[in-house]
Amino acid sequence: MIRYSLIGATGYVCGELLRLMVNHPQTELMYALDSFGVGEKIQDSHPALRGFYDKEIIELNEDNMDLVAEESDVVFIVVASGDVSKWGKRVIEKGKILIDIGADIRFRDYRVWQDWYKQEHPDPEFSKNAFYCIPEIHRNDAKGKKLCANPGCYPTASSLALYPLLKEDLIIENTIIIDAKSGFTGAGRKPALNKLLTEAENNFCAYSLGGNHRHTPEIEQNIAYICNKDLMDYDSWQKINFQPHLLPQVRGIEVSVYANSKKDISNDELYDLYNQYYEKENFVHVYPASKPVQTKWVYGTNLCAISPSYDQRTKRFIISSVIDNIGKGAAGQAIQNMNLLCGLEESTGLKIPAMYP
Amino acid sequence: MIRYSLIGATGYVCGELLRLMVNHPQTELMYALDSFGVGEKIQDSHPALRGFYDKEIIELNEDNMDLVAEESDVVFIVVASGDVSKWGKRVIEKGKILIDIGADIRFRDYRVWQDWYKQEHPDPEFSKNAFYCIPEIHRNDAKGKKLCANPGCYPTASSLALYPLLKEDLIIENTIIIDAKSGFTGAGRKPALNKLLTEAENNFCAYSLGGNHRHTPEIEQNIAYICNKDLMDYDSWQKINFQPHLLPQVRGIEVSVYANSKKDISNDELYDLYNQYYEKENFVHVYPASKPVQTKWVYGTNLCAISPSYDQRTKRFIISSVIDNIGKGAAGQAIQNMNLLCGLEESTGLKIPAMYP
Amino acid sequence: MIRYSLIGATGYVCGELLRLMVNHPQTELMYALDSFGVGEKIQDSHPALRGFYDKEIIELNEDNMDLVAEESDVVFIVVASGDVSKWGKRVIEKGKILIDIGADIRFRDYRVWQDWYKQEHPDPEFSKNAFYCIPEIHRNDAKGKKLCANPGCYPTASSLALYPLLKEDLIIENTIIIDAKSGFTGAGRKPALNKLLTEAENNFCAYSLGGNHRHTPEIEQNIAYICNKDLMDYDSWQKINFQPHLLPQVRGIEVSVYANSKKDISNDELYDLYNQYYEKENFVHVYPASKPVQTKWVYGTNLCAISPSYDQRTKRFIISSVIDNIGKGAAGQAIQNMNLLCGLEESTGLKIPAMYP
Amino acid sequence: MIRYSLIGATGYVCGELLRLMVNHPQTELMYALDSFGVGEKIQDSHPALRGFYDKEIIELNEDNMDLVAEESDVVFIVVASGDVSKWGKRVIEKGKILIDIGADIRFRDYRVWQDWYKQEHPDPEFSKNAFYCIPEIHRNDAKGKKLCANPGCYPTASSLALYPLLKEDLIIENTIIIDAKSGFTGAGRKPALNKLLTEAENNFCAYSLGGNHRHTPEIEQNIAYICNKDLMDYDSWQKINFQPHLLPQVRGIEVSVYANSKKDISNDELYDLYNQYYEKENFVHVYPASKPVQTKWVYGTNLCAISPSYDQRTKRFIISSVIDNIGKGAAGQAIQNMNLLCGLEESTGLKIPAMYP
Repeated sequence: MIRYSLIGATGYVCGELLRLMVNHPQTELMYALDSFGVGEKIQDSHPALRGFYDKEIIELNEDNMDLVAEESDVVFIVVASGDVSKWGKRVIEKGKILIDIGADIRFRDYRVWQDWYKQEHPDPEFSKNAFYCIPEIHRNDAKGKKLCANPGCYPTASSLALYPLLKEDLIIENTIIIDAKSGFTGAGRKPALNKLLTEAENNFCAYSLGGNHRHTPEIEQNIAYICNKDLMDYDSWQKINFQPHLLPQVRGIEVSVYANSKKDISNDELYDLYNQYYEKENFVHVYPASKPVQTKWVYGTNLCAISPSYDQRTKRFIISSVIDNIGKGAAGQAIQNMNLLCGLEESTGLKIPAMYP
Repeated sequence: MIRYSLIGATGYVCGELLRLMVNHPQTELMYALDSFGVGEKIQDSHPALRGFYDKEIIELNEDNMDLVAEESDVVFIVVASGDVSKWGKRVIEKGKILIDIGADIRFRDYRVWQDWYKQEHPDPEFSKNAFYCIPEIHRNDAKGKKLCANPGCYPTASSLALYPLLKEDLIIENTIIIDAKSGFTGAGRKPALNKLLTEAENNFCAYSLGGNHRHTPEIEQNIAYICNKDLMDYDSWQKINFQPHLLPQVRGIEVSVYANSKKDISNDELYDLYNQYYEKENFVHVYPASKPVQTKWVYGTNLCAISPSYDQRTKRFIISSVIDNIGKGAAGQAIQNMNLLCGLEESTGLKIPAMYP
Repeated sequence: MIRYSLIGATGYVCGELLRLMVNHPQTELMYALDSFGVGEKIQDSHPALRGFYDKEIIELNEDNMDLVAEESDVVFIVVASGDVSKWGKRVIEKGKILIDIGADIRFRDYRVWQDWYKQEHPDPEFSKNAFYCIPEIHRNDAKGKKLCANPGCYPTASSLALYPLLKEDLIIENTIIIDAKSGFTGAGRKPALNKLLTEAENNFCAYSLGGNHRHTPEIEQNIAYICNKDLMDYDSWQKINFQPHLLPQVRGIEVSVYANSKKDISNDELYDLYNQYYEKENFVHVYPASKPVQTKWVYGTNLCAISPSYDQRTKRFIISSVIDNIGKGAAGQAIQNMNLLCGLEESTGLKIPAMYP
Repeated sequence: MIRYSLIGATGYVCGELLRLMVNHPQTELMYALDSFGVGEKIQDSHPALRGFYDKEIIELNEDNMDLVAEESDVVFIVVASGDVSKWGKRVIEKGKILIDIGADIRFRDYRVWQDWYKQEHPDPEFSKNAFYCIPEIHRNDAKGKKLCANPGCYPTASSLALYPLLKEDLIIENTIIIDAKSGFTGAGRKPALNKLLTEAENNFCAYSLGGNHRHTPEIEQNIAYICNKDLMDYDSWQKINFQPHLLPQVRGIEVSVYANSKKDISNDELYDLYNQYYEKENFVHVYPASKPVQTKWVYGTNLCAISPSYDQRTKRFIISSVIDNIGKGAAGQAIQNMNLLCGLEESTGLKIPAMYP
């Protein structure tokens, strides 16, 4: 049994993690920590979990973190930007596994984080040892890793869409544009005017307009990794545009990835290429261009579904890729990473069908 | 008083046209024709119009079309692809104004229509005399025109987004990519599985994936027009990618237009440039990059709202532009065109605030 | 020209009021006051109003209220429970019209307010002189009134549904049950967890479960008024159940009113009866039982649409009634009341079709 | 292993059944029949099931039904009204279990079916032997049963809401009123105008207005059963009003049940009473009146969640009860019934948390 604990337990990501763990045969929840809802039951924050967990939320403080580090095998952490090292360091020191679902430790070069997150990095050293892992791309480096940077939602959908094209060296440099759309769970659970149903329903808009979204350098780092470029090279080798939008729906990310091709290819060949890369993957489904993927097909799962296409007329790839932002985009992938780091079959507990319709 | 008639009266576009006309001080509905709902009242198809029109739907047939041509000053027509000339020709022959809200007569070169609409064009000659008009772009050619091709929804939002950049010659050739999203009214009123709330709600997907959507050449023709290129040149001068998606909402289009810039520009300068082009326009609102436009801001109106932005890092423009697909994208613009062709102030009857929230 | 001012200008109700006033030919906005958004433009709170009002929000304080009372003919006020007299008294003292869209002055007996609003009434005397007005029911008492209690949204939909049955004395005492459902604009604009799209979308629930919603005594008072009972009789003559629910939509109220009948009646006769009462009304539409009303038919309007039905088997009426909660349920009716009190035709500026679809 | 087959496999109910069965450790799908989608894979109709079933849809015809009856232990059937006996009879003749998710065999007295379903009953004899089963209410009669009438969605939510009150004889005769609301999956998958997102989104309405919905007599029969009245007594002992409405959401039913009480009771006592009846049930969750249940709490599950309340002022119960209409309201309960009839623990495969948010 893997004993796990959650830091940031009342948010959407930990709620989803707990929902998915119900299906996992080899885990046991030890502690659920947060600064909110202390003393309440898990089901008070996550009403769908009534009957599945009887633990109470305990306070996120030093003492409780010591307890967590002592008695857990794996700790999942979702805290404010910059706070991971402060709370999570002792988990690593105790030789346990720490999986950070935030962004603190995602960058090889901490200066990139500083530039895009507009903060001084509290612990560059800690960050440097982290293992960033989209399992389908990075799993070969997993051996012996304890500190895991769980990828961002957009970077996951985008990188899986780009992976075969980049590995085959099919993309002309500096032509990648990613137009991304996310449901509102991606914006967290804290009340704010623009997230009210009254404002958000029947409404759609871009945000972080003009190239300043913080997932941009994370995707660029993934591209560099796939193409075997130096991750410590501060200036991105490939500069991309990543433009996010807000969908009037609860869950689901779609990214449409555009890139100019170095050579002509048919949609059939492209479909075959993607299948070649992904047919053995449990969590990547490839569809032909004639059947564009829908966010609902992956609702509540750890799946990524991809429809690659190629426009002969403009010599451009258009790859549509969908995930559930709090599934494969957060909690699902975190469990997949836990399985990977703990030596379990990666798909343990994660093979569930989407909620449709 | 302008006497007008509607062909295709039970659909969403004519419903919106009738809703907007309530506000128009100088029009009078003569006939409402369709193949559906014949004998029923207008409010049976459009329940919101109870109390505003007492006309019955009459059958779309030769005799009634003769009546329409005889007794109307302006005829709005929304029929199946290829049928406009057959029904509408007599309106022109009688010297009246015909405004086609479909695509039959939108292309200078009818072979483009044939290639993208996969049909033999029934009347290339008729089509050639049509006046395609986004008023903000084409109004100077309006004089004496009787046959009007009302633009497509996506081309309207896209062309208004591109107009200042193209006029200023700021865009590098063949770098334009348009990622478009539309609410479901854009897919018409005919029942189909994918349009059911059960399938569409909480769902998002691309369609016509890979560059084959029929609004692509219409946007390319508009680009050529703005740049003073030959509209009869079969092969597009600028080849663009236009990729549409379906939003889980009733109304609203957002297009995110990407294009590589020939020179650096600040977001402030860009904002000023757009204001320069649009500050005298009644129906184009410009916002700074820091305030991305929302589809709800234009809900139910003839407005286009645009937030232009520039990414210094990638030297790319990202222009976010929103319209109501059946407002400025169809019925609203049709009325604006009617005003223009009839010599009225273009904004007559169209200055209404959006429905918000 | 009627010069009007708004207290509580950044909320949904005042936003709707301003939207509707665009269509009103005889009004002019003087001041827009609030405690939020001071110094900002109206369009910063209400983006759909760009181009229609250039006023700034000024602070809600004593001095500005003096200004308002001095320079306005009509003042609309939406403030926290218990605050109307404090801010609004001077408007009445200056002989101007004050229309309170909140609940402070809705009850003839201030003790009812105290019991249901769980507060001491700050000014029972002020309250006693108020004129509560659903125009279709109370307009005959309007003469000379200056202080208007604008009715609640649920009471409006419910009372108009009950009016013909009560006037005809068809309902058995103490059998009225009202099951009500409202869109989220009814819950105001202040951010809260349960109003987030993520929580509210695809979700439905009752609230104030078990008979304690504050609109209950307001409906009972209306019933007493219609039936000529003593409004100062503290104990309701008819005790009803009013049970509200939250709909996953932006606007719209539906109430299903159940009541046992004193005698049998056919659906046709019932339809005729309702038409008899409402056929001359601009803002009440009656439909047969076979065509149940939809909230979308009245979206954005001052309309109430009603489908009355009778179940022979159980000898019960089931009346379905819909309004837009911030239209006829708040801002629309407030304007209708303004028209009434100012001697204008009641429907001035309010005859607009609903937004459909 | 229980070998099961599905008749009507492309609809929402069978899709949900297959989704839930993924979690069931002791079942194996044999055949999936339908008149639509013949020759296609299950995932073509139910995209979320890719990777879980590789069967093709085979035609619903005599030969295939013989095969089904021969090789299955349990057959789930969802066909047009009146067709169950025709297709399903052979399953019973072969000694296998048939679970009808439609209404053909729900009534003890076939004349009730005829009156409310407006059809001659094709096989009253077949119908008479059926075992109608909401397990929490009827499970004691299950022994040896092979032909199971799976209850309707509304009757399930309503009967579980009423059960403790009826068993305790707390309700005054003929005072029960049920105001019900359902998401659109309840209306099936066949395309129709009123089910389009464009028409249904942001919209709410009653349907079958005035007491003529076909679930009315089914609820009345359940009430009679609970109260030990004669089920063959054609005239209902208790006459109820059941009034359904359509919610702008995919899944979820809420019923608000109103009934006059024979005696006073506090909300605390009422909460205790419901817990007494349901605390040992896996699939009924009771909440206090202060915490009204939400449809999202049971999304995708076999749960029924109930908040009972009592209004001292009017001496009426108001019970709010929610289920997922295609979960506990159809597919979930069908599996629970299968477990019951096959001698498995009732909850086998069904203990999964709801999808939230």
